[in-house]
Amino acid sequence: MSNALPKRPLPFGADEYAARIATTRQAMAQRGIDALIVVDPSNMAWLTGYDGWSFYVHQAVILTMEGPPLWWGRTMDGPGARMTVWMADEAVHPYPDMFVQNPEAHPYKHLCGLLKEWGLESATIGVELDNYYFSAACIGQLLAHNEGASYVDATGLVNWRRIVKSPAEIRLIQRAGKIVEKTHLMIAERIEPGVRKSSLIADIYAELIDGAEDADGEYGGDYPAIAPMAPSGHEASAAHLTWDDQPFRQGEATFFEIAGCYRRYHCPQSRTFFLGDPPAAIRKAESAAVAGVEAALEAARPGAVAEEVEAAWRTTIAKYGFEKESRIGYSVGLSYPPDWGERTMSIRKGDRTELIPGMVLHLIPALWEENFGLEITETFLVTDRGAQPFCETPRKLFVS
Amino acid sequence: MSNALPKRPLPFGADEYAARIATTRQAMAQRGIDALIVVDPSNMAWLTGYDGWSFYVHQAVILTMEGPPLWWGRTMDGPGARMTVWMADEAVHPYPDMFVQNPEAHPYKHLCGLLKEWGLESATIGVELDNYYFSAACIGQLLAHNEGASYVDATGLVNWRRIVKSPAEIRLIQRAGKIVEKTHLMIAERIEPGVRKSSLIADIYAELIDGAEDADGEYGGDYPAIAPMAPSGHEASAAHLTWDDQPFRQGEATFFEIAGCYRRYHCPQSRTFFLGDPPAAIRKAESAAVAGVEAALEAARPGAVAEEVEAAWRTTIAKYGFEKESRIGYSVGLSYPPDWGERTMSIRKGDRTELIPGMVLHLIPALWEENFGLEITETFLVTDRGAQPFCETPRKLFVS
Repeated sequence: MSNALPKRPLPFGADEYAARIATTRQAMAQRGIDALIVVDPSNMAWLTGYDGWSFYVHQAVILTMEGPPLWWGRTMDGPGARMTVWMADEAVHPYPDMFVQNPEAHPYKHLCGLLKEWGLESATIGVELDNYYFSAACIGQLLAHNEGASYVDATGLVNWRRIVKSPAEIRLIQRAGKIVEKTHLMIAERIEPGVRKSSLIADIYAELIDGAEDADGEYGGDYPAIAPMAPSGHEASAAHLTWDDQPFRQGEATFFEIAGCYRRYHCPQSRTFFLGDPPAAIRKAESAAVAGVEAALEAARPGAVAEEVEAAWRTTIAKYGFEKESRIGYSVGLSYPPDWGERTMSIRKGDRTELIPGMVLHLIPALWEENFGLEITETFLVTDRGAQPFCETPRKLFVS
Repeated sequence: MSNALPKRPLPFGADEYAARIATTRQAMAQRGIDALIVVDPSNMAWLTGYDGWSFYVHQAVILTMEGPPLWWGRTMDGPGARMTVWMADEAVHPYPDMFVQNPEAHPYKHLCGLLKEWGLESATIGVELDNYYFSAACIGQLLAHNEGASYVDATGLVNWRRIVKSPAEIRLIQRAGKIVEKTHLMIAERIEPGVRKSSLIADIYAELIDGAEDADGEYGGDYPAIAPMAPSGHEASAAHLTWDDQPFRQGEATFFEIAGCYRRYHCPQSRTFFLGDPPAAIRKAESAAVAGVEAALEAARPGAVAEEVEAAWRTTIAKYGFEKESRIGYSVGLSYPPDWGERTMSIRKGDRTELIPGMVLHLIPALWEENFGLEITETFLVTDRGAQPFCETPRKLFVS
């Protein structure tokens, strides 16, 4: 393997990666884990810088208690790894293409060979048991081909290390915030009855990717980990429909659940747009949602726990006659499809995670009613002085 | 649960869904499978019509040997299911939101309760063992909470049923083909030194989503299951880098690996664009790639097997001094992130799958060399008369 490939500029400094490795190792030590097989692409990127749309094949970062993390993946992704990770080329371990989507040859058989080479044949190995990228076949292969090791569930181990953001990470989310804010303002300008929904979604994608400008200059956007959700009218009682190519209609509300993304860091935000004169029921939902968001943001102070934020929302909307069962928020940051959430804390009843300055949460208290859906959401930073939203998008139902 | 939600128009008729269920049951019977837990979102959509970006939480379609398939998923996705599936509302079985991304309460525990209710406590149950959406935790939960059943690996069982497309499916892929063809022509017009790559990707997204027009009228595009890949210069020796916000440079080649998508059906196609006067090495790669693609298409006749198509490519490019290890194609159609491939047949050495009219394959014989990457690819339909590409995009290196 040659050393000839120039590195892409890393989003973080060497010290920051070193600190991430150190805190992860501390958590491993507490759990008695000798080695971690990290398959969540967000965790892989957070530890090593690795970036590429290659997670549709098996790949991993292996972190032991010493030495650099090891990247393992498909041969054709080796060059991309060598360009994007902070480690030297020797840390990149490709597997042959015959292991790709071949029922006869699972790539974890190859990985097991490496684990043995690395002296991990009787180690305690942490795996991300409930992750999209760790299928049931993966654990089966490990048990069959590196059978002397013990495997423990380390789902979320790295994710929880990511929950308090560094100043450099917050800076990236700020840039993502500018992008989503200007996209909502663009929607407000262009949405009208008769416009084909897919055409407006085309404009949304263009705006999200074209990027924005701040004091440090112009910058482009990255692909959000979730496609835009944009249901209208009664369809907006469904949470996760994307779009179709039918025209917007007078008298209907549409919510746009989108995120700005910059170097894989997300700032999600939803706004709802009504065409025409909103009926009283929707205005009432707007009042409840805005008051509820304000109450929740007010409650999101350092030292509070997640469920207190939810309680503030719930008691506020109850005054307007609304109820909502589902969680109203989650931690966000670095992400890859299919989810822009970090899958750690949730703002919901029973979650006693304490809010700490540097946490970033998407507060998404949607109201999906029988005949309409309303989303007015904010991504905010927990600071010493309380919650600080990333966007200045007007917090209201947009009407045109 | 009310029946009030109007259905979205289904992409296929009742007969087509019935035929899909019948062929899947036939495959289940051959394997002695009483019930199938289908988690691949593409397979879920193919069997039921279900469409929504909800696959970041656990969900499934359960197919037994009798009655309609059953949709199971998060409560807030129940309305979306009721709107998009062909079955009656009674087939939609939601689980409470407390099971979402909660380490204390895995949703498969809820599913196990239903499996028992449905009399599947000692059934032989097929699971998609090596799928993104069937984590190692899923099999653990099934073994723990529906412990009387036997579980067999049914990875790909439904995917293989999808490999020969119906006329209605081919029609959707044709529409996707028009979209990707016009997108490449747009790139040819707009790419030039100094243009920020993210700005061109913004235009690409806009073109892909805005859609196209054919004899039946205008139509919008859907989100492709993979984001655009667009590495330039030496970075194009990496297969799966997405983009950054740096300007295109004179003297560099960039390949754009993109797909048109219409109602979740994909037509992927890559083209490579050179700014300036291409060096001899790239011209030579172009000649090899074009001749290789032509040879492979010529070989892709009904009755041929997949590896013969690969051999035609390999022996052709060898004459130009090129070698390529990895597979050069795969089956495509209905897909959700993170992969637009169907994960069944591959065009590679050792794959003896016979080509049958109605199959749709993406022939992607990329040449990733030390200092550049070149992709000139075609998605084609296998017909009685041989391979028929979906696009008329000029098959060449674009130079501007």
